[in-house]
Amino acid sequence: MNENEHIVQGFKASAVAAGLKKENVLDLALIFSEKEATVAGVFTTNQVKAAPVILSREHVGSGKAKAIIANAGNANACTGKTGLNDARLTADLVAKELGVASEEVLVASTGVIGQPLDMDLISGAIPGLVETLSPDGIPDAARAIMTTDSFSKISMFKGLAGDVPFHILGIAKGAGMIMPHMATLLCFILSDIRIDAQDLKRALLSPVETTFNRITVDGDTSTNDTVLVMANGTAGNGPLSKADQRGFIDGLKTVMGELARMMVKDGEGATKLVNIEVKGAHSPSDALKAAKTVANSSLVKTAFYGQDPNWGRIMAALGRSGIVMEEQRVDIWIDDILIVEGGLGKGVEPEKRAAEKMSEQEFDLTIDLHQGDYQDRIITCDLTHEYVTINADYRT
Amino acid sequence: MNENEHIVQGFKASAVAAGLKKENVLDLALIFSEKEATVAGVFTTNQVKAAPVILSREHVGSGKAKAIIANAGNANACTGKTGLNDARLTADLVAKELGVASEEVLVASTGVIGQPLDMDLISGAIPGLVETLSPDGIPDAARAIMTTDSFSKISMFKGLAGDVPFHILGIAKGAGMIMPHMATLLCFILSDIRIDAQDLKRALLSPVETTFNRITVDGDTSTNDTVLVMANGTAGNGPLSKADQRGFIDGLKTVMGELARMMVKDGEGATKLVNIEVKGAHSPSDALKAAKTVANSSLVKTAFYGQDPNWGRIMAALGRSGIVMEEQRVDIWIDDILIVEGGLGKGVEPEKRAAEKMSEQEFDLTIDLHQGDYQDRIITCDLTHEYVTINADYRT
Repeated sequence: MNENEHIVQGFKASAVAAGLKKENVLDLALIFSEKEATVAGVFTTNQVKAAPVILSREHVGSGKAKAIIANAGNANACTGKTGLNDARLTADLVAKELGVASEEVLVASTGVIGQPLDMDLISGAIPGLVETLSPDGIPDAARAIMTTDSFSKISMFKGLAGDVPFHILGIAKGAGMIMPHMATLLCFILSDIRIDAQDLKRALLSPVETTFNRITVDGDTSTNDTVLVMANGTAGNGPLSKADQRGFIDGLKTVMGELARMMVKDGEGATKLVNIEVKGAHSPSDALKAAKTVANSSLVKTAFYGQDPNWGRIMAALGRSGIVMEEQRVDIWIDDILIVEGGLGKGVEPEKRAAEKMSEQEFDLTIDLHQGDYQDRIITCDLTHEYVTINADYRT
Repeated sequence: MNENEHIVQGFKASAVAAGLKKENVLDLALIFSEKEATVAGVFTTNQVKAAPVILSREHVGSGKAKAIIANAGNANACTGKTGLNDARLTADLVAKELGVASEEVLVASTGVIGQPLDMDLISGAIPGLVETLSPDGIPDAARAIMTTDSFSKISMFKGLAGDVPFHILGIAKGAGMIMPHMATLLCFILSDIRIDAQDLKRALLSPVETTFNRITVDGDTSTNDTVLVMANGTAGNGPLSKADQRGFIDGLKTVMGELARMMVKDGEGATKLVNIEVKGAHSPSDALKAAKTVANSSLVKTAFYGQDPNWGRIMAALGRSGIVMEEQRVDIWIDDILIVEGGLGKGVEPEKRAAEKMSEQEFDLTIDLHQGDYQDRIITCDLTHEYVTINADYRT
C-alpha cells in the first residue's frame, strides 16, 4: 500500500529522534485529532502496570481525547511515583503546546523496564513534534514506536456507515514480551467514523479478544500493553444502525487482525508464522488452553524452526495442558497433511510431505481432539537462535 | 567420587549398545536385585503416558520387584497397543532370561516419541545384558539411559538405620522436556535398606516433591517421567524407628536433590544454574506459582544467558503470574546484591556487581514479595543458542 494512503481526515501525526533510543532514529511520536474524538482503550492485565498505562487508563475514562504521545526506548515501567509524575508531565507539556487540556492527552511508552524517562529529551522534543504535525505523518509515527521490530506495522480499512464512507487506520508495534491478555504492546487506531464513546468501548472488546488476545511470541505479557482507538466523526455519518456497528466492528477486526499477524511475523527472531487450530475440544476453555500450551512450548517452537513435524512434542504438550483428552482420539495435520490419526503417527511419507510444508514461511497446525464441539486458534511463531541473540543482548 | 564406590550390596547392573541410538553407544541398561526387593514408583502426570509408564505402574502395584530394564533412543510413547505389547514383551524376555516372574520386571524408556520400538534389537541384546550383570555395572547403566545429556548422573548416600549402615545409590537422566510434575524423566534408586513396600512408598513422596518437582529446564512435562526406588534389605537392619525412617527420607532427599541439580546443570544447552527463591508470598501456592513463572520465562532465561540483571523482565513475569502482589513491595537480589527495593531499581552500580555474579556458572535469584510468610524455590537454567540448536535438530 502506498504510504500516502495512510491518511484519515482530521488526524495529524509526527515523529522525531529525541535521543531515547541509543541509535539516532525516530523514537517519539505524536498523534493529534483536530476535533475532539471519542476514545476507548484496553490495557495490560499484568499486575505490574507501567506509569503511562495508569495515566492513560485514567484519561480514557472520560471517553474523549485529542492526542496520543508515545515513545520507544524506555517503557517507563517499574519507575514508581517519579514515573507517574513523568507521564503526567509529558501529557501536560503536550497539552500546553497543542492548546488542549491535559486530560485529553494519552501517553504510551515501550522499551526497557525500570529506568527513569529522560524528561529533558522529551520536553525538548515536544515543540518540534507539534510543529511538524502533518496528515501524512502516520507512517513516521509507526516507525517511531518500534523497539526490536524489524518493520513498521500499519493497516487500513475502508467501510460504509449507511452510504457514508469511513476509514480505520491502525499502527502497532511488537516484537517481544508478546502474549497479550486483553491488550497487546502498543496499538493506536484512528477512525473518522462518528460513534459515541460507549459504543466505541463496546466495539473494541470483541476484536481485541479474537485478534491480539490470540497471538503469542514468547508467552510473556508486557507491563505496557495498550490499545487505543480514537474516532473523530469527520466522516459525517449519522447515528449508526446495528448493521453499521457490525460493519465498524468488522473493520476493527480486519485492522487488528492484520496488525496481530504482522506482530507474530515480526516476532523476535521469528522465521515462521504458524496458525494453530484446536478443534473438537470438550469446552471453549479447553480449546484455548490446548492451543496456548502448544503455541508456547519451547520444544514445539524449536521443532517449527527445525522444520521437523515432531508431533510427539505436540502430544506431550496437549497431555500436560490440563484439558480433557484421550491420546487415542487425537488427529494432527500440518496444512492438509494428516500426520497423526487416532494418536498414532502416519509414518515417514506423510512426515516428509509435512516437513516440506513447514519449509514455507507460514503453515497451519490443526489438532482435532474429538472430545466435543469447541474450537479456538492461536497464531504463534518459531523459537530461533536469533530470538536468543536478541534477548541475551537487548539491554547490553 | 570413584566409580568403584557406586555399588550397593545385592544389586547388579549392565549395559549394551543395542543399536537403538543412531551412534554406536550404550543404550540399553539392566538393573537386577538378587533378592526380591520392595519397590515404589512415581510417574508422569502427563495425560499422554508412554507404554512403559503404564506397564511399570501396574507392576509396581505389588510392592515387589527384581529388575529394571531401561532403554534410551526411543520413548515408546504414542505407540498405542503395539507399544504396550512391546513393553510387556520386553518384561517377559528379561524375566525368562533371569528366571523371575514378568511382574517383577519394571520397564522404562526415553527418547523420541511416536516410533515403534525395534524389538529385534531389544530381544537380541537381552541375553548379553544378563550375562554381563555385575555389581560395578551401575555407572554403565547411568550412561546407557542418557539422551541429550552431556554427562551421566549418579549420586550416593550412606546412612545409619539404628547402628546398621545403609546405602542409597541413584542414577538419573535429563536433559530436555523437564518440568516434572510428580516425577521426572528417568531416575532409579537402589538401596540395601530393609523397609516394607508401604513405608517405601510413603518415603518416596516428599523427596520427589521437594527435589524433582522443583526443577525446570524448558517447562515441558515428559510423557515418560519415572522415578523408581528398590530396597533389597541386604543391609540387615531391624524394623525402622521413626528416626531411622526420617534418616532414610533425608538420604533420598540428598540423592534426589543432587540428581535434580545435575539435571538442571546439564539442561539442554544450559550454561548457568539459577536457584530461584520466592519469599514473603501470600500463600504456599503463590510462592510456587511465582517461582515457576519466573523460572520458565523465556525473557528471564535469555537474560540469565546474557548475564544481564534485567529485573524488569522478572517484575513483568511476577505481574502476569496471577499471584497476590504489589509492585512497590518487591525486593530482588542476585546472590547478596540487592538490585530492586520497593519495586524500584537500585541503579547502575549494584547491577554491575550483579552482572559479575551472573558470570558465574551458578547464582541465586531471591525475590521477597512482602505479602505473607510463605516461600518456595525452583532450580532453573538459562535459555541459550545451544538449546535451540539441540531442539531444532534433535530428530533430523
